[in-house]
Amino acid sequence: MKILRADMARRQVAWEPVPPEYERVGGRALIVRVLLREVPPTCDPLGPANKLILAPGLLGGTTATSSGRLSAGGKSPLTGGAKEANAGGNAGADLGRLGIRGVIVEGQAAPGELYVLHIAPGRAELVPAPELRGLGTYATAEALKERWGANCTVISIGPAGERRLTAASIAVTGEGRQNSRHAARGGLGALMGSKGLKAVVLDARGSSLVPLADPELFRRAAKRFAQELIESPKTGKKGSSHLYGTAAIVAAVNELGCLPTRNFSEGRFEHAERLRGETNRELTLSRGGEMGTRCMPGCVIACSNVFVDPAGKPVVATIQYETIGLLGSNLGLGTLDEVAELNYLCNDLGLDTIEAGAALGVAAEAGLATFGDKGSFVALLDEIARGTVLGRVLGQGATVTGRVLGISRVPAVKGQAMPAYDPRALKGNGVTYAISPMGADHTAGNAFGSRGEVGPLAVEGHPALTRKLQLGGAMLDSTGLCLFSRPPLLADPQLTVDLLNGRYGWGWTVADLDQFNRQVLRDELEFNRRAGLTAADDRLPEYMMCEPLPPHNTVFDVPESELDKALAEL
Amino acid sequence: MKILRADMARRQVAWEPVPPEYERVGGRALIVRVLLREVPPTCDPLGPANKLILAPGLLGGTTATSSGRLSAGGKSPLTGGAKEANAGGNAGADLGRLGIRGVIVEGQAAPGELYVLHIAPGRAELVPAPELRGLGTYATAEALKERWGANCTVISIGPAGERRLTAASIAVTGEGRQNSRHAARGGLGALMGSKGLKAVVLDARGSSLVPLADPELFRRAAKRFAQELIESPKTGKKGSSHLYGTAAIVAAVNELGCLPTRNFSEGRFEHAERLRGETNRELTLSRGGEMGTRCMPGCVIACSNVFVDPAGKPVVATIQYETIGLLGSNLGLGTLDEVAELNYLCNDLGLDTIEAGAALGVAAEAGLATFGDKGSFVALLDEIARGTVLGRVLGQGATVTGRVLGISRVPAVKGQAMPAYDPRALKGNGVTYAISPMGADHTAGNAFGSRGEVGPLAVEGHPALTRKLQLGGAMLDSTGLCLFSRPPLLADPQLTVDLLNGRYGWGWTVADLDQFNRQVLRDELEFNRRAGLTAADDRLPEYMMCEPLPPHNTVFDVPESELDKALAEL
Repeated sequence: MKILRADMARRQVAWEPVPPEYERVGGRALIVRVLLREVPPTCDPLGPANKLILAPGLLGGTTATSSGRLSAGGKSPLTGGAKEANAGGNAGADLGRLGIRGVIVEGQAAPGELYVLHIAPGRAELVPAPELRGLGTYATAEALKERWGANCTVISIGPAGERRLTAASIAVTGEGRQNSRHAARGGLGALMGSKGLKAVVLDARGSSLVPLADPELFRRAAKRFAQELIESPKTGKKGSSHLYGTAAIVAAVNELGCLPTRNFSEGRFEHAERLRGETNRELTLSRGGEMGTRCMPGCVIACSNVFVDPAGKPVVATIQYETIGLLGSNLGLGTLDEVAELNYLCNDLGLDTIEAGAALGVAAEAGLATFGDKGSFVALLDEIARGTVLGRVLGQGATVTGRVLGISRVPAVKGQAMPAYDPRALKGNGVTYAISPMGADHTAGNAFGSRGEVGPLAVEGHPALTRKLQLGGAMLDSTGLCLFSRPPLLADPQLTVDLLNGRYGWGWTVADLDQFNRQVLRDELEFNRRAGLTAADDRLPEYMMCEPLPPHNTVFDVPESELDKALAEL
Repeated sequence: MKILRADMARRQVAWEPVPPEYERVGGRALIVRVLLREVPPTCDPLGPANKLILAPGLLGGTTATSSGRLSAGGKSPLTGGAKEANAGGNAGADLGRLGIRGVIVEGQAAPGELYVLHIAPGRAELVPAPELRGLGTYATAEALKERWGANCTVISIGPAGERRLTAASIAVTGEGRQNSRHAARGGLGALMGSKGLKAVVLDARGSSLVPLADPELFRRAAKRFAQELIESPKTGKKGSSHLYGTAAIVAAVNELGCLPTRNFSEGRFEHAERLRGETNRELTLSRGGEMGTRCMPGCVIACSNVFVDPAGKPVVATIQYETIGLLGSNLGLGTLDEVAELNYLCNDLGLDTIEAGAALGVAAEAGLATFGDKGSFVALLDEIARGTVLGRVLGQGATVTGRVLGISRVPAVKGQAMPAYDPRALKGNGVTYAISPMGADHTAGNAFGSRGEVGPLAVEGHPALTRKLQLGGAMLDSTGLCLFSRPPLLADPQLTVDLLNGRYGWGWTVADLDQFNRQVLRDELEFNRRAGLTAADDRLPEYMMCEPLPPHNTVFDVPESELDKALAEL
């Protein structure tokens, strides 16, 4: 495999053999290693010294199911710490097949210049692309596919990333209609924008299959992995993940009382019923949309969907739980059509729906929009689209929006907005939000599925659980595997070990894998420490400690000592 | 002496005897002690757990010249760390005469409520003052003097503080026309606003003189102190400080090449001649204004002035060097009339002229105003006055303005804007900006006057100098003494010791005073550490390390190791 470096200042690309220190890392693990070795931790995240890393997981490009996620990373313009965000679509698999361990984008193009990085088997070039300036991510993908072929995969930013707004995402195309996936968290779209890089086009046609060190071992493991997912009552053909997608949990989260409602002021939403996964399925199928589609080629879970409007026209693929929580209940909006419309606008601008939804909620609390009035939120997104000062404020995310508008009820940790689980009624997630090196992030270690192990309102027992979940997250994000494929992998770690040994022949043991996962977290925490983050950043916002959340009327009361203990045990 | 506590939530005041731990501290030293003992370091600076402390220095209310500065402090909404800012006017002396070691304002009034704290000898009350909402600091002072008597002293915030904008100052009245002094730095006006406290009215009439433990010792020391200032070629009647005020240094700073010009992009300004102290004196006297006025009663230096417009109408008292640098050359404005007009608007809004000037410079770089066009900056201040979103952005100071507008050339440290010495051409100030617990602050240890000891462009020799200056600053800010009175005090530390022993009978030695000063810095650094600030915050902005400043075309190249050494030796 190779490392591809793109030097934006010199407009040069260079292929490098993978150096020993990057040999046994991929995805998130590669990103933090590059950060520690190549990026000054105190650098301006939007300055020339930061680097954008795009990397497949260690299993990217293989035939293992659900293994093609693309990791994007760098020093986060939002949290100021190490950041990895990943997305489905075709990019992870393509990069794996192209034999690329990671693309490292360095330096900055001259102000006003904009480039596309085109990568095909064995060759890459930076192409000026002034004509793409200001285009949304959908139009960008269309224009680039027109130029480079419909089978290309496009990784791009929208106007939000071009303007270096710290709620900006990186979009990735996949197969099928409206398939726009986002490495959304941490403002990595702004980092890409700061480089002067509008898009990366991957043309994997003609690339060979990834080599396998032990084909037999790999195939056996991959088969067992797929089989377990197919036979699972959750991820199989009759499972809720497949039938209803990530939105399958809307009703349960609402019942639990932790569904963000009207800027995290309530934990139950009166219209949750209309936002449920079951409602989505019914509505979508009745209108000629699609359920059970794939975000990545070959995935056996197929939890995606193509949401269509009443006339059957595709709006977004896919409509996700976190988006429903942040752009729906959090804004007091109670129909999937409203959520999908805002979702489309965010996707096209290249904005994280979580960060944008939280910022809009804060803005509504400040009186700039009205909970329940979709038009008022469309108007705010239009401010972002037009690049007004208000739009620039909102586009920086919830924390800056709160600071500017004088609102202290901002649901964020380390400057990053919380996903759709209010931590006052699901305290395990509060623990992860607080201490994860990623800031408030559900993929860092979501305790929702483990509420049988540690009760949602329990104030004790969190360290062991968050550790297990965060280590699992590090493994998934470094191998390119999807969160939904977690259960069989956590139940039998040998499965991942076999996949990796089959692919690379490293002869790893389960202990080696555990050590690997642990090192990812420790390296991220070390980078954050050097970047200036401290225990003071490992806390939830003050108001969540004293303002009770209906309906349970509980505050976040996990003691700071428990948080520190959990962090020490990571 | 007493501590006066004002509990804004309960609308109660309480007099307390000074507890032992606050007995031998005043001003800045009292503030940090209260912070360490009473304020959770990670609290929301604008939340109920933060406290606003108003305190005279240890010599406040005595007859020692230049000793009546008022210290304001708390956890800074701008830097997130310990903060003390002080101002002239009558408040420091009044509080001393009222026998008050410090006023500690706690909790928060109910949203929408606004109070005045009225203090007279032996009594205090919180009075609802809804009629003052939105008033500028000049009108507030006028209204309160009308109600409580012309001899009262008014400490107040303007609309900026009411809106909790983090560039907001606290204004203090003094004798004479337009006499508005500001404890400007660190956003303490926002902290006062967050409490629901519009103003404090001090009525010291009828209060007795402060008691002296050793009247003879005190009078001898006070006399020698005054004598030395009067006989000094700098602060005496023929000295530049008296004749030209703080603006005396405009020409020298410009010659040195470190006068902030057009958002710190140049170090010399082509119209500096028109902004000089000499020009100010000539213009002011020719128009019927006043030079050589006093900011504090009884001050022998009298460096102040009343700047008048061409018709002889007072505009501001006083026009200061830092204001000329930040609202003048930094905005490309080359006349004192323009500076005075912006100065008046900032004073009335209750805005730090340094922070506001830096924010306006950043806004101009973003294209929202035009360097050299006063009207464009008046329009931006009007946005702040009207409370528009843009106004709220600018009112948060330079760092937030840069973040929102996408400008990385932001002259700030720890979120606080630099005063009027570009550190690339006066590296000693860069060292102080970087490592002072206060963030970028000239009063924390200004190396300008010591450029004979360590050359302005030297990259070595800074640790000893900044240590000496920062310890001197801690002493001045804790005793209530003015920066201009520093030379005789630093030349003979026994002088300060005699003043303190004469006042309190503590029997201190020079070593005790040195230890006291050191403790102030160490306590502030400790509070900052607990609040989450680290070595990563002890750095200048990245662009100053790589973008040369004309005319010397030098970058800030004091090695990080030297900064860390200087910090360790504080």
